[in-house]
Amino acid sequence: MPNTMEKAAVLVETLPYIRKFAGKTVVIKYGGNAMLNADLKRSVIQDIVLMKFIGLRPVVVHGGGPEITALLKQMGKQSSFVSGLRVTDEETMAAAEMVLVGKINTELVALLGGQGARAVGLNGKDAGLIKARKHLATVYEDGAARQVDIGYVGDVAEVKPDIIWTLLTNDYIPVIAPVGVGENGESFNINADYVAGEVAGALRAEKLVLLTDVEGIYRDYHDKSTFISTLDFAAAKRMIREGSIEGGMIPKVEACIRALAGGAAKAHVIDGRQNHSLLLEIFTDTGIGTEVVKGEGQSDEC
Amino acid sequence: MPNTMEKAAVLVETLPYIRKFAGKTVVIKYGGNAMLNADLKRSVIQDIVLMKFIGLRPVVVHGGGPEITALLKQMGKQSSFVSGLRVTDEETMAAAEMVLVGKINTELVALLGGQGARAVGLNGKDAGLIKARKHLATVYEDGAARQVDIGYVGDVAEVKPDIIWTLLTNDYIPVIAPVGVGENGESFNINADYVAGEVAGALRAEKLVLLTDVEGIYRDYHDKSTFISTLDFAAAKRMIREGSIEGGMIPKVEACIRALAGGAAKAHVIDGRQNHSLLLEIFTDTGIGTEVVKGEGQSDEC
Amino acid sequence: MPNTMEKAAVLVETLPYIRKFAGKTVVIKYGGNAMLNADLKRSVIQDIVLMKFIGLRPVVVHGGGPEITALLKQMGKQSSFVSGLRVTDEETMAAAEMVLVGKINTELVALLGGQGARAVGLNGKDAGLIKARKHLATVYEDGAARQVDIGYVGDVAEVKPDIIWTLLTNDYIPVIAPVGVGENGESFNINADYVAGEVAGALRAEKLVLLTDVEGIYRDYHDKSTFISTLDFAAAKRMIREGSIEGGMIPKVEACIRALAGGAAKAHVIDGRQNHSLLLEIFTDTGIGTEVVKGEGQSDEC
Amino acid sequence: MPNTMEKAAVLVETLPYIRKFAGKTVVIKYGGNAMLNADLKRSVIQDIVLMKFIGLRPVVVHGGGPEITALLKQMGKQSSFVSGLRVTDEETMAAAEMVLVGKINTELVALLGGQGARAVGLNGKDAGLIKARKHLATVYEDGAARQVDIGYVGDVAEVKPDIIWTLLTNDYIPVIAPVGVGENGESFNINADYVAGEVAGALRAEKLVLLTDVEGIYRDYHDKSTFISTLDFAAAKRMIREGSIEGGMIPKVEACIRALAGGAAKAHVIDGRQNHSLLLEIFTDTGIGTEVVKGEGQSDEC
Amino acid sequence: MPNTMEKAAVLVETLPYIRKFAGKTVVIKYGGNAMLNADLKRSVIQDIVLMKFIGLRPVVVHGGGPEITALLKQMGKQSSFVSGLRVTDEETMAAAEMVLVGKINTELVALLGGQGARAVGLNGKDAGLIKARKHLATVYEDGAARQVDIGYVGDVAEVKPDIIWTLLTNDYIPVIAPVGVGENGESFNINADYVAGEVAGALRAEKLVLLTDVEGIYRDYHDKSTFISTLDFAAAKRMIREGSIEGGMIPKVEACIRALAGGAAKAHVIDGRQNHSLLLEIFTDTGIGTEVVKGEGQSDEC
Amino acid sequence: MPNTMEKAAVLVETLPYIRKFAGKTVVIKYGGNAMLNADLKRSVIQDIVLMKFIGLRPVVVHGGGPEITALLKQMGKQSSFVSGLRVTDEETMAAAEMVLVGKINTELVALLGGQGARAVGLNGKDAGLIKARKHLATVYEDGAARQVDIGYVGDVAEVKPDIIWTLLTNDYIPVIAPVGVGENGESFNINADYVAGEVAGALRAEKLVLLTDVEGIYRDYHDKSTFISTLDFAAAKRMIREGSIEGGMIPKVEACIRALAGGAAKAHVIDGRQNHSLLLEIFTDTGIGTEVVKGEGQSDEC
Repeated sequence: MPNTMEKAAVLVETLPYIRKFAGKTVVIKYGGNAMLNADLKRSVIQDIVLMKFIGLRPVVVHGGGPEITALLKQMGKQSSFVSGLRVTDEETMAAAEMVLVGKINTELVALLGGQGARAVGLNGKDAGLIKARKHLATVYEDGAARQVDIGYVGDVAEVKPDIIWTLLTNDYIPVIAPVGVGENGESFNINADYVAGEVAGALRAEKLVLLTDVEGIYRDYHDKSTFISTLDFAAAKRMIREGSIEGGMIPKVEACIRALAGGAAKAHVIDGRQNHSLLLEIFTDTGIGTEVVKGEGQSDEC
Repeated sequence: MPNTMEKAAVLVETLPYIRKFAGKTVVIKYGGNAMLNADLKRSVIQDIVLMKFIGLRPVVVHGGGPEITALLKQMGKQSSFVSGLRVTDEETMAAAEMVLVGKINTELVALLGGQGARAVGLNGKDAGLIKARKHLATVYEDGAARQVDIGYVGDVAEVKPDIIWTLLTNDYIPVIAPVGVGENGESFNINADYVAGEVAGALRAEKLVLLTDVEGIYRDYHDKSTFISTLDFAAAKRMIREGSIEGGMIPKVEACIRALAGGAAKAHVIDGRQNHSLLLEIFTDTGIGTEVVKGEGQSDEC
Repeated sequence: MPNTMEKAAVLVETLPYIRKFAGKTVVIKYGGNAMLNADLKRSVIQDIVLMKFIGLRPVVVHGGGPEITALLKQMGKQSSFVSGLRVTDEETMAAAEMVLVGKINTELVALLGGQGARAVGLNGKDAGLIKARKHLATVYEDGAARQVDIGYVGDVAEVKPDIIWTLLTNDYIPVIAPVGVGENGESFNINADYVAGEVAGALRAEKLVLLTDVEGIYRDYHDKSTFISTLDFAAAKRMIREGSIEGGMIPKVEACIRALAGGAAKAHVIDGRQNHSLLLEIFTDTGIGTEVVKGEGQSDEC
Repeated sequence: MPNTMEKAAVLVETLPYIRKFAGKTVVIKYGGNAMLNADLKRSVIQDIVLMKFIGLRPVVVHGGGPEITALLKQMGKQSSFVSGLRVTDEETMAAAEMVLVGKINTELVALLGGQGARAVGLNGKDAGLIKARKHLATVYEDGAARQVDIGYVGDVAEVKPDIIWTLLTNDYIPVIAPVGVGENGESFNINADYVAGEVAGALRAEKLVLLTDVEGIYRDYHDKSTFISTLDFAAAKRMIREGSIEGGMIPKVEACIRALAGGAAKAHVIDGRQNHSLLLEIFTDTGIGTEVVKGEGQSDEC
Repeated sequence: MPNTMEKAAVLVETLPYIRKFAGKTVVIKYGGNAMLNADLKRSVIQDIVLMKFIGLRPVVVHGGGPEITALLKQMGKQSSFVSGLRVTDEETMAAAEMVLVGKINTELVALLGGQGARAVGLNGKDAGLIKARKHLATVYEDGAARQVDIGYVGDVAEVKPDIIWTLLTNDYIPVIAPVGVGENGESFNINADYVAGEVAGALRAEKLVLLTDVEGIYRDYHDKSTFISTLDFAAAKRMIREGSIEGGMIPKVEACIRALAGGAAKAHVIDGRQNHSLLLEIFTDTGIGTEVVKGEGQSDEC
Repeated sequence: MPNTMEKAAVLVETLPYIRKFAGKTVVIKYGGNAMLNADLKRSVIQDIVLMKFIGLRPVVVHGGGPEITALLKQMGKQSSFVSGLRVTDEETMAAAEMVLVGKINTELVALLGGQGARAVGLNGKDAGLIKARKHLATVYEDGAARQVDIGYVGDVAEVKPDIIWTLLTNDYIPVIAPVGVGENGESFNINADYVAGEVAGALRAEKLVLLTDVEGIYRDYHDKSTFISTLDFAAAKRMIREGSIEGGMIPKVEACIRALAGGAAKAHVIDGRQNHSLLLEIFTDTGIGTEVVKGEGQSDEC
């Protein structure tokens, strides 16, 4: 471990970064291994509280992970999937909401509180934060795409960020569960990456940081030498279109695109499996993972 | 139904009450039949939103009711009880928290939102709102009282109301689930009546209103002619001590006592089985149900 | 009379309207029978105070009616009229001002105060609220129109609403007497309808409501079946030009036009002879009387 | 007239006084000759506006003078007097209120406005500013004092200064007519000196300045050599008791006593017949006229 | 000396000017004889404090004058000059900064404080107020202009006025020494006229007033009859170009041009040798000296 | 040097300290070797800016050191000393002020600015910050103490901290030169330790930290084993009285005593010769150097 003087030197090195990000809003999508592993979880919580105390304004959006499946199983409820999305009937949605809002969210809020931060849990129903609309699954059959209703799976229709601003300006850390509210008050389960991207856009955040289980984005996922440090907006869209970004990485890159399109300055896909990856992203020049940026000459109207 | 002119007359009649309560905080304990019956639920939601729009500051605390039992059953979990309190192991507590925070609370928030109010769900973990300590059950055996540890059943150790004030002063309706947070971040299930009483005291509320399934308090519960309109503080305490208040009414009266002791001006036990009982309590001279007051010559130090 | 439960139901019915008008400014022109009849007067005062307490921001403009004539008569002063307008020499103006500011205005302020509102009387001289310019009477002689100087009869040259905003934002109800101030500090008597219209425009009020002694506007005043519920801006102007609006209704419709042209959202001509007509206008879907609106495709530049 | 350099010197001489009174509230009772003579009137108006612009906070209270009598005469109304107080029936009160509020007050507001100040007229009904109670006249008959009801002649029961603070903090000059409001909304005519004294006390003003038609207070009114520069509180009371202050000077000295008792720092009786006497009082070391002060060793509890 | 009544009259005469300049920012360049002569110094200090107390917002920029030379001499340091500018090595700059910031500035702040104002000394390093860039001297040799590096003589590169606004809005008088800060934290001596001009522009001041040792600007300096009362922007530039303004007057006129170009409303060159010339400029219709204005039809883009 | 992960760990370790000191005011006396050595100087500047950015409110007070002597020497001015204090005539004071305010202060402000902080230089004249009174030297002759006037050497008579609060609440770092202002505007040189102590007391600072050239306080300065970690108030006073604290350490311990007596929470004497000693004091549990505290049972009235 570093000795006392080395510690002081480390602190002083952070000065330019602290200066740079003072008062800036950073939206953090928290999920994957960083949520499952106890050590990583503690490290993320510490990072977020530290960010808050040195003057940034973190906003946390979390996913649900395997806990929803566990509860459904415990309740004796079978799940079916269409194109990788869980078919979500009313009972399934209720279980998902209970886990997201009543378990994962409250646990995060308590952990942040345990480190001295004043965190407040939110979900899309609070002050109408996230209006949802139904998301239809796309099925390819006989070479044709078909839209299938899979229940209470939603997409973000609108973000009303007033409650987030109220909390941020009063020095709280908002922690958001990815549940949206429909026209009739019904709940929708929304992909947390999309929620994070839309929230970052609506807040015109300085950064969206997505904690993932990969090092970042690759031009060819199978060839580690194709790692991309900086990706521009147009290229990101093209890569999705052309299929070089695929699977679970698609919603992450799309979340970055939505964040930038909405008004966020930068978006980052980083490796949540590494301890303190959030701090490393903020407090080093090169950052870590892949950053997605607007690119020169690109207008705001994307 | 009243005709147009009669409607106008009704509105005008409310003027003195609206005037009287402008800007006042009213803590509402929502539970019992008013939570189970769809008509009553709609009526309560309308009343709360109306109170908000005509200038009061409602704060809602809700209980859990039979839904916790339902989930536990669905999860194949057996419950045992000691002195009427559920023995609450970690798994039971997790289920209770999911139901309270992730189901009942979100539903109330959505219903209030559906009527145009901006409601925000809270629980004891949010910004450290409700610190809990373990509540031991009292068992009487061989004529002696014994304290029994029944797990994560808690009592209110401290209310930190800053997040409530932040929400009230920004025109939101706080909706509070009765979950407290222990020293180590663990959750405790707390009787919602007590939470409501302590919150009303901490906010120095104008009123605590408890929606119950009885008309109010009786000197002798079996004799309807002994209904009490106004009960003073000292008498309430004496009636509990002497056993004339018993069973489920005890926590309600104790909640009133805590509210008044903490600084609330008045407390009311009203009949939630009646449509719009909240409005009737606020908008009539006599109010409804039983009111508990400090009583003349009684100091604030109770 | 409705019973208790019906009363509650009436209150709940008002919720959508209360929600809709929360924080909105409504300028009320108070005059005619509603000012002369004691019952109606009480009803109007109650309505205004209720509007205030449930979150609207009422601004009252009143006229003078027969009391000016009464004082002049008592002072032994003869009046002559030109084209329906009183020839107003200095002494007449002084009498008018004394009645408007020192009698009618103070009485209204006291009545509103008696109902618990904090009302403050204003006239055009207060903080330069209403700058006036001389209004010449138009006389038709030998088929030609001629402008005649009839003394201190004025028109609104400018509204400086800062004192109104100061009062509204500090929770007072401004009550305005229709006296304007000329370049040299002299007083002008201005038609209260015009004052109300100009004030509503300057405040970009949600509504101008004119209490009159008719049910509303008719296409043909003699044929009750030609009642108009909604009149658009262009049509209103055309009807004046074409003479289908005539007599005392002209200034009322012109006041509506001025309000809308200045930036108010809507204007209403309602029947002040009906008890609680103000409440009925605000708290029913159809409203009462005739509403004047901008009309589609019409620019702000009218 | 002084030349340019002398003018500059004069301005510089005022510096210590401007410094001393910056932000201080001064209540001015305006009445007597200063109100009747056009030159004096202009001089007072200029002085008040100058006070405002150099950073003081003037509040004006005016009396009624002979104009009430003039109107009553014009209306063919006979007045009778008891112990020097006009017997004031409802009609007389209405006339007084019209003159005070609708003539004198509006004229002062317009004159102050003409000099660039933003003045706002008030009377006791505005936001409940001056609550009045009936003042009985004292009649001495057969060596005994008897209280006689003379109608709507009142005394100050309570001052609610919130509207004055609202105006002062928004940079307006409040101008107050001495009309109070009774329990049932009825008007009372109150001696303007008393109103000024009570208002100065309620505002904890820096100064109350009474413009009168004498040079100040004399120990013996008939002997000019007995002029008093500084009078302390106890002495003032004693002089009234002993009868060395008499007639119209009594209410003035009592107004000073009320101002000091209420919390004002100083009170002054100055000669309003002198041009710019207000400025001279503020901007010279010795001031002019007689000052009434608390006196050493006298507690606030008078 | 004027008598008491004449004094009052003088005060009243100032009313229109006080009204006109209430809340307006005036940047005063203080230098020349007004700084050397004890009487004039006292007069300037009084004028500035008076301006502050009657509601203007003075900002003072001072020069250095002969005191820098005196210290250099005392330190045994020889000065050489190029085109009238002192060659300023590091030691010379250190001496200049000590005199400007540690002697002249502190003395002015203390004098203003002695008159009851709360003055705060600033220089270009405080909160980065004045960023400087090197100013090269222009030497004409063999008919050609050549730029010569003469050390730490600077020009204004940027004004960051936030600290001035912080002080003005908290009722302090900022007093600015003309020292700028370079990219690497080094000090630059900047002509105080230019600093005043740029500061006036950055603050969008109502006036820049330059206290000089001449009466104003002449078309032909040798012919007193060519005195110019009002000079427009374009003419000022032309006169410099054509050489009719020369020598020490050039930076003064250029300061006026910079002030107007930056957004100040007016600039004045006045005679600081006259007692209270600042007051005379502010409090007379014609003002004194020469005023430089934008001129009709001239855009802001100069 | 630590690797990336170790760096992150170091940052996380600081969390409890950052949390603890968020928003707290720390007064730093900067002097001694830390001012002379370029490396140490850079380290102190970095520490202060870092403290600011992570949420503390540093206030810097600096001394003068050998630079005053250097300037006096350069000016050919001889100094004489009485009891270790420089005899300070007017010319010497002027030189001291120029060095303190115009050289050391501006340099510190520029260095802090170079690291991204917005620092503002102050001295005792700014807004009357430090009122001084003459400090007499004590001479012991023939066994008797005698007071000797040694000119413009002062002590703190009063601190008026409003300008410091204005700067702190607007996010500036105040940097204070130890020059006080006398009754007549004259300057006084005051020991910077005393200034720091009085300022810390007046601000009720969380900490006063004195950077010195020793490790802390020893019970016996010659025996390093007598180092004191924590010293209480009473003991500190006793040690001065008994002579175990002597020489240059006396003003430092007295500064601590003044800070605590005035209302500061803690005072620290630390070793400024060590790099980043400020950070180490703030960010370690044990701190470094000697801390002086009130001690149990000691009232605020010391």
